[in-house]
Amino acid sequence: MVKVGIVGGTGYTGVELLRLLAAHPEVEIQAITSRSEKGLPVADMYPNLRGYLDLAFSEPNMAVLKKCDLVFFATPNGIAMTMARELVDAGVKVIDLAADFRIKDIDEWSKWYGMDHACPELVEQAVYGLPEVNRAEIKKAQLIANPGCYPTAVQLALLPLIENGLIDTDNLIADAKSGVSGAGRGASVAFLQAESSESFKAYGVAGHRHLPEIKQGLALANKADVGLTFVPHLVPMIRGIHATCYARLKDKNTVGQLQSLYEKQYADEIFVDVMPAGSFPETRTVKGANVCRIAIHVPQDGDTVVILSVIDNLVKGAAGQAVQNMNIMFGLNEDAGLTAIALVP
Amino acid sequence: MVKVGIVGGTGYTGVELLRLLAAHPEVEIQAITSRSEKGLPVADMYPNLRGYLDLAFSEPNMAVLKKCDLVFFATPNGIAMTMARELVDAGVKVIDLAADFRIKDIDEWSKWYGMDHACPELVEQAVYGLPEVNRAEIKKAQLIANPGCYPTAVQLALLPLIENGLIDTDNLIADAKSGVSGAGRGASVAFLQAESSESFKAYGVAGHRHLPEIKQGLALANKADVGLTFVPHLVPMIRGIHATCYARLKDKNTVGQLQSLYEKQYADEIFVDVMPAGSFPETRTVKGANVCRIAIHVPQDGDTVVILSVIDNLVKGAAGQAVQNMNIMFGLNEDAGLTAIALVP
Amino acid sequence: MVKVGIVGGTGYTGVELLRLLAAHPEVEIQAITSRSEKGLPVADMYPNLRGYLDLAFSEPNMAVLKKCDLVFFATPNGIAMTMARELVDAGVKVIDLAADFRIKDIDEWSKWYGMDHACPELVEQAVYGLPEVNRAEIKKAQLIANPGCYPTAVQLALLPLIENGLIDTDNLIADAKSGVSGAGRGASVAFLQAESSESFKAYGVAGHRHLPEIKQGLALANKADVGLTFVPHLVPMIRGIHATCYARLKDKNTVGQLQSLYEKQYADEIFVDVMPAGSFPETRTVKGANVCRIAIHVPQDGDTVVILSVIDNLVKGAAGQAVQNMNIMFGLNEDAGLTAIALVP
Amino acid sequence: MVKVGIVGGTGYTGVELLRLLAAHPEVEIQAITSRSEKGLPVADMYPNLRGYLDLAFSEPNMAVLKKCDLVFFATPNGIAMTMARELVDAGVKVIDLAADFRIKDIDEWSKWYGMDHACPELVEQAVYGLPEVNRAEIKKAQLIANPGCYPTAVQLALLPLIENGLIDTDNLIADAKSGVSGAGRGASVAFLQAESSESFKAYGVAGHRHLPEIKQGLALANKADVGLTFVPHLVPMIRGIHATCYARLKDKNTVGQLQSLYEKQYADEIFVDVMPAGSFPETRTVKGANVCRIAIHVPQDGDTVVILSVIDNLVKGAAGQAVQNMNIMFGLNEDAGLTAIALVP
Repeated sequence: MVKVGIVGGTGYTGVELLRLLAAHPEVEIQAITSRSEKGLPVADMYPNLRGYLDLAFSEPNMAVLKKCDLVFFATPNGIAMTMARELVDAGVKVIDLAADFRIKDIDEWSKWYGMDHACPELVEQAVYGLPEVNRAEIKKAQLIANPGCYPTAVQLALLPLIENGLIDTDNLIADAKSGVSGAGRGASVAFLQAESSESFKAYGVAGHRHLPEIKQGLALANKADVGLTFVPHLVPMIRGIHATCYARLKDKNTVGQLQSLYEKQYADEIFVDVMPAGSFPETRTVKGANVCRIAIHVPQDGDTVVILSVIDNLVKGAAGQAVQNMNIMFGLNEDAGLTAIALVP
Repeated sequence: MVKVGIVGGTGYTGVELLRLLAAHPEVEIQAITSRSEKGLPVADMYPNLRGYLDLAFSEPNMAVLKKCDLVFFATPNGIAMTMARELVDAGVKVIDLAADFRIKDIDEWSKWYGMDHACPELVEQAVYGLPEVNRAEIKKAQLIANPGCYPTAVQLALLPLIENGLIDTDNLIADAKSGVSGAGRGASVAFLQAESSESFKAYGVAGHRHLPEIKQGLALANKADVGLTFVPHLVPMIRGIHATCYARLKDKNTVGQLQSLYEKQYADEIFVDVMPAGSFPETRTVKGANVCRIAIHVPQDGDTVVILSVIDNLVKGAAGQAVQNMNIMFGLNEDAGLTAIALVP
Repeated sequence: MVKVGIVGGTGYTGVELLRLLAAHPEVEIQAITSRSEKGLPVADMYPNLRGYLDLAFSEPNMAVLKKCDLVFFATPNGIAMTMARELVDAGVKVIDLAADFRIKDIDEWSKWYGMDHACPELVEQAVYGLPEVNRAEIKKAQLIANPGCYPTAVQLALLPLIENGLIDTDNLIADAKSGVSGAGRGASVAFLQAESSESFKAYGVAGHRHLPEIKQGLALANKADVGLTFVPHLVPMIRGIHATCYARLKDKNTVGQLQSLYEKQYADEIFVDVMPAGSFPETRTVKGANVCRIAIHVPQDGDTVVILSVIDNLVKGAAGQAVQNMNIMFGLNEDAGLTAIALVP
Repeated sequence: MVKVGIVGGTGYTGVELLRLLAAHPEVEIQAITSRSEKGLPVADMYPNLRGYLDLAFSEPNMAVLKKCDLVFFATPNGIAMTMARELVDAGVKVIDLAADFRIKDIDEWSKWYGMDHACPELVEQAVYGLPEVNRAEIKKAQLIANPGCYPTAVQLALLPLIENGLIDTDNLIADAKSGVSGAGRGASVAFLQAESSESFKAYGVAGHRHLPEIKQGLALANKADVGLTFVPHLVPMIRGIHATCYARLKDKNTVGQLQSLYEKQYADEIFVDVMPAGSFPETRTVKGANVCRIAIHVPQDGDTVVILSVIDNLVKGAAGQAVQNMNIMFGLNEDAGLTAIALVP
């Protein structure tokens, strides 16, 4: 059994982690911390966990965390970087679901996240936890930077095209749409049901924090910078991300190879589903499941390829991917605790 | 033209009042106040008003308000009672959309609202603004206590039965359901879309503030106290209240008269629609409209009568009823500015 | 491994059964039939099952079904009664998720379901599959009438009061609310999102088919007929039932015992959660889970007890309860395949 | 008073037309036809119209329609083209809300709509009813092809850039999102609330019927063909379209002029609202209103311009635009009957 601790478990990423870990056959949850809610039984805040998890939030306590095999950080940005050093030094593995270790360029990170980095030397050591790209490194990693939700959907959509050099990488477009749980569980007017439901809007066009993360991942595959316009939108639903990615083929004659190229690329990936040609993945088909479904289109005999990619932002886009990374790190079956089928309808 | 001021216009009741008054043919909005948002153009907070209302929030200013013919209070409970005296003395008419003047029994009010009343003598003078009951008094009133949303739906449903002495008034049940806009525009976790949508729950069973208001209204009609169990519920939609009211008939032979009794009672009421026997009013048929639709059922040849009643909580349950009261007070057509048809679908 | 067949798997009850059975550790799905969709891979209709279920719909075939240990009927009313006899005679166990075997009084059944019963003699033999009431009989049963969704929520709410003789059973009220998946997957205008979302309404007040089923169950516990007014409503959400049940206590002094009475009654029931006094169960806390959560209220020092009860209509109200019955019939752990935690948010 | 008839009033476009026309100060509705619903009072199908419209559906009758000044067709594609000739010859003005007269190239029309055109000679005569482009011609027109919903949102977004020759028109992208009312009021599984709510998906990537209509409009402004990738998506909300349009600037130095260029272009347009730089138009701010709100972005100092454009698909995208066209054709105030403010929240 893997002994795990969770730091900061009151948000949506945290409760999703709890839902997955409480049912995981190889995990024992040792502690779940929340400064503000210490003493509160977790099931009082999340009654869906009544009967499944008999644990209360506790004050973060390094001594307790150091006894864990693995600590997940489901905290706001800027927390994990202040605690990871001590845990890593104590031999504890760490998975940060926030953004502290995602961006290799420290200055770039500081610019987008608006703070100095408390632990730049660990950034270098951290492995970006996208298993479909980095599985071998994840296996050996002690510190994982768990990818953001948009970056997961967009990279899985575009990487096969980039790695195979098929598209013009100067003018990529990712028109992405997310359900409201992506905004987190903080009290706010903008995400009241009376405000956000029955409406649709773009946001963050000038620059969303996931932009440098996506560009970094695509550039690595491209072995050169990429040009990307990334426009996130808010969808009036709770869970789900849909990325609609546009790119121009360098050579129109490659159209016929695209479907099989994607199928080959993801043939051994249990959590990436390349759908049949002509499909339209729906976000609800991954609701609660650790799956990314992808479909490839090249409309109107043109040279613009349109990749559709859906994930559950809280699962493959956050907590599920973190559990997948844990499974890889500890030599468990990669789908241990992740076999739930999406809830439809 | 009636010159009106609005105190506290940033909440849902306030913006709904603005929507109705901006299109009202006989009204000039002089001022809309908000301490926290002073200086902000109203249309910056509510872009639906762009092009319709060229006004900014201003600090509450008695001198300005006293020049109005009528001041609406769309404030939290406890504000109107501190300002109404001065306005009333200055000859300004006042409509309070909050609860300060609704309950005649001052101690009862204090118990439910958790504060001392700042102006008990005005409570006596205030007229309860349910036009279908108090039209004559409203016409002459200088201070109106605009009814609560649940009380409007429940009273219009039950009053005909009580006034005609047809039911056992000791054991009334009002099972009421409200959309989330009823909770207001304050930042809160419980009303985030990710929390309240796709779920249904009861709340306030132990005692909701609208209970004494409903009981007061029913008791007046009954000329004696009534026994009422009132259970409010939260519906995952933005607007609408549906009250399902249960009462036992004293005499089963009166079943045949009920439909025509309701039709007669509300024959001259332009904003109460008694639907054909066997109907099921849907809240969406009153969305944005100042209408209460009612249907009468007596299921299974029994003696339990079931009254279904729907309103838009922000219109007939708040701002629309306030405008209706204004129209009556100023001798305008009762439906001036209130002729919009509900938005379906 | 239990070999199971499913007749009629294209509706919401059917796909939910598939979701549960595909992940069940002790089950092998042998066949899933659909006359209209024969040949279609199940995962083409329900892409959430892609990768989990490699089976196509097939024409109903008695020879195949007879080789099963258990056949589920997820068909419209009136189908199971024409096929059950042959399967039962062949020693196959049968669970009907429709209503064919729920009502013991054949004339009553015919009246409500508008057809003659094809197999009245099996009705007597059938066991009503509410485990919390009939576990011992279910264990030995060959034919199970799986309860309706509303009847499950209402009976679990009211039975403790009735069995203990605490309430006046002449005037019970069940004000019930259901999500739209309860209406099934048939094409219909009334349940288009543009019609049913953002609205709330009652329906079936004159008489819903679940009324006789609920009355039968309550009367059995009461050892006498009961008087029940049952009003179902439609909630703009996909899954969930909330029953608000009202009853008058015979003796007000019993108020203090109610909470512990419910806790005792359901102490050994893994799928009934009696919440702490004062709680408000939310339907989302059982979304996708085979749980009924119940809370007891007696508002305002009165003698009216209000029981709140929530289930997922497709799980504890249909497919989950069917799997629970299967587990009992085959001596498996009662929660085998039913341990999923509700998806929140 | 303009005497109008409506052919085919049972769909969402039809009822929206009724909602607008019933409240229009200069209109008298003479007849509303529906073969399938003849005799049914309109308010029985749409209870929101109870009290506002005392009219029943009638069988289409040429004699009656010929007495109208104007006939609206809110019929499926392919109907208006069989009846318009006779009405036009009788001097009746016609506005077709379907697609029969939108595409000038008859072969192209036949290809996309899958039928022969019954009246090609009228196509030439028909005026495309986008007032912001064709106001002068609309004024004199006898037959109007009312634009599609997506084409309205996309053309208003892109035309200023094209007319001013600022962008590369070979590689335009329109990533468009529509609420479910766009699919109409026909019974269908895909648009059941249990299917379409809480999910998001693309559709019609291979080729949507609005593609040739958009391309025709843009090409006219461009005086040459344009290259356009158009990907429509389904948003889980009732009303609203959001178009996110991407184009590359020929010259990066023009960035600074874009905001004022749009403001100038639409300065005299009462129904196009160019929002301040940096804005994010929300679909709810046009719910029920005949408004298109547009915002211009050029993210990350790049040369890709992103235009955000929102309309209510049933108002500015259908019935409202039809009424606007009527107002222009009959010399009424262009906003007569169209002054309603969007319903927020």
